[in-house]
Amino acid sequence: MNNIQSWGETLRLLVELAATAAFALSGVLEAARKRLDAVGVCVVGFVAAFGGGTLRDLLLDQRPFFWVRHEEMLWGVLALCMLAMLFLRHRHFVLTEKAIQWPDALGLGLFTATGVHQALTLQMPALVAVLMGLITGVFGGVLRDVLCNEIPSAFRDHQPYAVWAFVGGWTYVGLWQADAPGWLALLSCVGITAGLRALSLWRNWELPAWRI
Amino acid sequence: MNNIQSWGETLRLLVELAATAAFALSGVLEAARKRLDAVGVCVVGFVAAFGGGTLRDLLLDQRPFFWVRHEEMLWGVLALCMLAMLFLRHRHFVLTEKAIQWPDALGLGLFTATGVHQALTLQMPALVAVLMGLITGVFGGVLRDVLCNEIPSAFRDHQPYAVWAFVGGWTYVGLWQADAPGWLALLSCVGITAGLRALSLWRNWELPAWRI
Amino acid sequence: MNNIQSWGETLRLLVELAATAAFALSGVLEAARKRLDAVGVCVVGFVAAFGGGTLRDLLLDQRPFFWVRHEEMLWGVLALCMLAMLFLRHRHFVLTEKAIQWPDALGLGLFTATGVHQALTLQMPALVAVLMGLITGVFGGVLRDVLCNEIPSAFRDHQPYAVWAFVGGWTYVGLWQADAPGWLALLSCVGITAGLRALSLWRNWELPAWRI
Repeated sequence: MNNIQSWGETLRLLVELAATAAFALSGVLEAARKRLDAVGVCVVGFVAAFGGGTLRDLLLDQRPFFWVRHEEMLWGVLALCMLAMLFLRHRHFVLTEKAIQWPDALGLGLFTATGVHQALTLQMPALVAVLMGLITGVFGGVLRDVLCNEIPSAFRDHQPYAVWAFVGGWTYVGLWQADAPGWLALLSCVGITAGLRALSLWRNWELPAWRI
Repeated sequence: MNNIQSWGETLRLLVELAATAAFALSGVLEAARKRLDAVGVCVVGFVAAFGGGTLRDLLLDQRPFFWVRHEEMLWGVLALCMLAMLFLRHRHFVLTEKAIQWPDALGLGLFTATGVHQALTLQMPALVAVLMGLITGVFGGVLRDVLCNEIPSAFRDHQPYAVWAFVGGWTYVGLWQADAPGWLALLSCVGITAGLRALSLWRNWELPAWRI
Repeated sequence: MNNIQSWGETLRLLVELAATAAFALSGVLEAARKRLDAVGVCVVGFVAAFGGGTLRDLLLDQRPFFWVRHEEMLWGVLALCMLAMLFLRHRHFVLTEKAIQWPDALGLGLFTATGVHQALTLQMPALVAVLMGLITGVFGGVLRDVLCNEIPSAFRDHQPYAVWAFVGGWTYVGLWQADAPGWLALLSCVGITAGLRALSLWRNWELPAWRI
């Protein structure tokens, strides 16, 4: 039993690391596309990786931040940005973007679950908790796009992304309020969010457009 | 007497609801103009409606936020965004924009008064209190425009808007420091801000331009 | 001895005032270039002058802000923005931009040192402290550019700027951890940051470009 739990913890850590790396890389790629210099690439990478969780902690007044408790994450993202600048060439961009879609989908689910969980333990109302999950999962990318002077792609590309975080967040809230065990809520939220995201990537789903 | 007071409270609540709806609609309209998807429309609507007060509370370190204490406001704005997407057509945009100018002017005054009041009760200096009022009234729109990748219209369109919040804020501070009753300070601030804003809309006033 | 110390304090205050004025003017110039109105010029000037330190204090959860404790700084920047609008003409822009490079370089060093110092006294890890210094020195300009709908120039112009704040910040951390006296850490950080910045302006150094 203990064995299974620690195995679960390790898995969760691996997903978290992969997701953070995917988020950071999405920032690096966008910064490179915009021809930013080395400083810009690193800052946008950091903001994409840590921006969502930091904004959530600011709003919930939680300190210390995740990246203050885990300084090694900062070093890791810094190293990742450097390595990307040294080894990533333009012809790799499309491939990299394809490759990071899957850890990104997992990360969206995991970060959403983390945000919802933290808000619920602080006795936030249900809708606020779901919004906090959404902010954790989505606003790293939003801040990345704002810094790069783009309309956030999460708001514009008509692919369902934040919507699945919303659905996954409600799943978490529902299971939490039904007193389901924590691992079930976590797994369901990640599974539903990442699964639906993967499905929409695979089937090219589109959000309903505004019928102007 | 009791009757009048509760009547005043109801009026204030109505103004607040109308103003929040006007602010949210301004976000929805701008998001629609920029062809954002459903997620973008809702997020920009939320940010326009709640961004200013949230930024003020962040700066003043006040928790819980207004929208955490009044979850029903979140549901209301969410419903408003959905309804706008279902029923608002392109030909209605100009009309809607005209119509929301008046609750928006009232809201500018009311939100400014709220911000100034909160800062003063926290013993902030006068200028800081006025700036907090300004942030409450104006920065929802500023954040909306930043998310939509526009220079904030409050900084650019040469119509006096934030200026009247500044004037109204000083009115509130002056009456507060003269120990005037609270309702008088509130009414004066709202009246002066909204009145001057309405006047400048009516007479097409312009801010002095930079003589470059 | 006392004499020297108070002389040092006065010098520091003068550098701080000159740097804040330089930061505010950089905002005023950019706002003028973008043809913002009077409100926009003042807000962008304020954000450029106080944005970095405010963001740092938000992240470190420090209150009251610098500009709440020193209301006179707010009045000073407001007066500066007004005077600039009255007296600065287009033909002065290039000259002003040249002139503020030097107080700006000093300010970058001083603000970085302030940010690092504050984070270290709060027992933040070394890298976090350096990042806080960087945010203090650089993010006023970043927020200024975001409000003006530009990619932040610190991320894009390939001149080393934030990099020197990073180097200076590590100098401060190193001396602090070696228990060097406070004035030595401060002087070294300011000297190295401002000196290297001045050198790169003088010799036209460039950051290594991404070899795409």
